[in-house]
Amino acid sequence: MLVVEFEKGTVVLKQAPMPKRRPGEALIRLLAAGICNTDLELLRGYYNFQGRPGHEFVGEVVESSTPELVGQRVVGEINIGCGRCSLCRAGDPRHCSSRRVLGILNYPGVFAEYFTLPDRNLHVLPRTIPTDHGVFVEPLAAANEILEQVRIPKGAPVAVLGDGKLGLLIAQVLTAHGAEVHLFGRHPSKLALARRWKIRTRLSSQGPAKAAFQWVVEATGSPEGLGAALELVQPRGTIIAKTTLHGAVPLDISRVVVNEVTIVGSRCGRFPPAIRLLQRRSVDVAPLVTARMPLSQAQEAFQLAAEPGTLKVLLVPDGTI
Amino acid sequence: MLVVEFEKGTVVLKQAPMPKRRPGEALIRLLAAGICNTDLELLRGYYNFQGRPGHEFVGEVVESSTPELVGQRVVGEINIGCGRCSLCRAGDPRHCSSRRVLGILNYPGVFAEYFTLPDRNLHVLPRTIPTDHGVFVEPLAAANEILEQVRIPKGAPVAVLGDGKLGLLIAQVLTAHGAEVHLFGRHPSKLALARRWKIRTRLSSQGPAKAAFQWVVEATGSPEGLGAALELVQPRGTIIAKTTLHGAVPLDISRVVVNEVTIVGSRCGRFPPAIRLLQRRSVDVAPLVTARMPLSQAQEAFQLAAEPGTLKVLLVPDGTI
Repeated sequence: MLVVEFEKGTVVLKQAPMPKRRPGEALIRLLAAGICNTDLELLRGYYNFQGRPGHEFVGEVVESSTPELVGQRVVGEINIGCGRCSLCRAGDPRHCSSRRVLGILNYPGVFAEYFTLPDRNLHVLPRTIPTDHGVFVEPLAAANEILEQVRIPKGAPVAVLGDGKLGLLIAQVLTAHGAEVHLFGRHPSKLALARRWKIRTRLSSQGPAKAAFQWVVEATGSPEGLGAALELVQPRGTIIAKTTLHGAVPLDISRVVVNEVTIVGSRCGRFPPAIRLLQRRSVDVAPLVTARMPLSQAQEAFQLAAEPGTLKVLLVPDGTI
Repeated sequence: MLVVEFEKGTVVLKQAPMPKRRPGEALIRLLAAGICNTDLELLRGYYNFQGRPGHEFVGEVVESSTPELVGQRVVGEINIGCGRCSLCRAGDPRHCSSRRVLGILNYPGVFAEYFTLPDRNLHVLPRTIPTDHGVFVEPLAAANEILEQVRIPKGAPVAVLGDGKLGLLIAQVLTAHGAEVHLFGRHPSKLALARRWKIRTRLSSQGPAKAAFQWVVEATGSPEGLGAALELVQPRGTIIAKTTLHGAVPLDISRVVVNEVTIVGSRCGRFPPAIRLLQRRSVDVAPLVTARMPLSQAQEAFQLAAEPGTLKVLLVPDGTI
C-alpha cells in the first residue's frame, strides 16, 4: 500500500506492507486526511519526528473485534494511553505520561491507504456529516477544548489571534458559544471569510487595541504570538495558548506578574461535542478546504499546505478524486 | 530630612525638604522599612527607575485630615489609583491603568524620614504586632494573594521554588492554609529555617522530581525559575508566577500547550488577611530579619541585601537603633 513518510525534513512516498491490527485495534481504510500545522512543524523538526505522520482523518473500519464498527465511517481520538494509569482508567488518556499519539509520537499516522487505531479511540461519524467535513472533528475538538477549560460568558468580547485553519475554527466555535469574537489576522481573504460568519475582524498590521480583552486566544503559530496576546489582554485577563512551536519563545514575565495575567495551555479536546457542532451545522467548514489531493501527490500537497494563503489541504486515496 | 535615592544604578543619600501632604494624604514618620527584591531590581534598571524607592514600611501618622489616624502606627497599600476608573470606584486600585505605585512608579517611596500616602491606603497596625514584624505585611499580602487567585485544597502538595524572603513567606502562608509545602532552594541555611516551620525542603541542586506537583509557586527571582517550574508541574497543573525581572525569559510554549499547564501571574494582595496572619502568629517573621540599619547606612544596607545569604534588611531612622 502507498504511505507518506517524513525523512530528514522531506516528504517521501513509499510502498509498505498492510498494517496488522493488534488486539483491541481496528484496521481502517483511509477516506480523507487533513494536513495540520503540527504536521508542518513535525516536518521542520519538532519532536525530532521521523516516520509516518497524519492525525486528522475519516476512515472506514475494515476489521475490528467490535462487530458494530466494521463497515462504519469513523473519526478517531489521537491519544493512545497505556490503559493502566489513573488517567487512562478514568477514561481520558490525553495526559497519560506514556501515551502514544497518532502520527505524532510513537504511533504511525494516517497518511496511508490503511492504518490502525484502538477501537476505544473511534467515534462513528453520523451520516449527515460529509467525509471532508469529518476531517475537521479533531481540530474542532481542539478548538472546543477552550470552552472546557475556561468559562467565557455569553456576549463576552474575545480576541482570537491568527486567521489560520485553527484560528478560523476557534473563532467559529466561540461565536457558536455566544461570545463576541474579534479575529486578528494577516490575510485579507481569510478575514473576509470570517466576516461571512458575522465575526468582527482586524488586520494585525493595523496594530491591536491595547489591553482591551479579558480573553485572548493565541493561535498564530508564530513565536511573536504570545507577546501580541500579552499586549492585548486586560489586567487579570486570560490568554489561551494554542501555538506549539519547536523551541522557546520570549515571555515578558514581569508583565504577566504585574498584570496578574493567566496563561492557559490548551491542546486536544473531546470528540463528541465537536461531532455535535458539525451535526448541528453550528460551524461552517466547507470553505476551509483549499484543496483535495491524492496521496501520491503528498509532496505537492505539503508544499501547498505551507503556503501563506492556504487553509486545509486534504489527502485522499488515489482514485477517489 | 534624610532620604535615600537611586541615581544611575547607585544608592545615594540626600537631604530633602519635608514632603507636603496633599488633600486626602497623610504625612507619615518612618518607623521601619524593608528592602525588597523589587528594590534591588529597580536599582539594576527595572522600570528605568530613578528617585526614591521603598514600599514596605511601618510608620506613625503625623498629620492627616482623618483625625483617628493621627498618632497611629500604620502600614500602607502601595497602589495609588486614579480614584475615578471603575476599578478604583470598586475599591481596588491594584490594576488601575493610571495608578502610581509607592516607591516604584511615579510616587516617592518610604526610604526617608518622612513620606506621604493617601489615608485610604493606610491600615492601623494592631498593638500586638511589633513594628519590625509589621514591615512584612506588604510581602505577606503578596504571598496571600496566591490563595485569592487559586483554589488549593487543604492537604494538597505544593512546590515553592525559591528560598528567598518571598519564598519563605509563601511557604509559611501556604502551610498555614493547610497545604503540604515542599520548598526548593539553593541555601542550606534558609532551608534549615523552613524545616523549623515543619516545611519539607529540597536543595535545588539535587534536581527536582519531575512532573510531581499540581501546584508550583515560582518565586526564585531568577530567569531560570519558570523553566524549572515547568519541569516540576503535572499536566493540567498550575504555576503561580511571582518573579518580576527586567527583560524577557525563555518559555517552552509547546510544553505549556501540550501539557495544558496554567500560568497565573500574581502580584499585590490585600492587607487585612496579612495583618490577621501576623496577629494570629500563623507565620513567623522574626527569623527573616537579617539586619536593622539606619537610613544613613543605606548604601551598606543595599550591599548586604544583595548578598546571597541575606534575608530581610530593615532601614530605620538614625538614632532609633
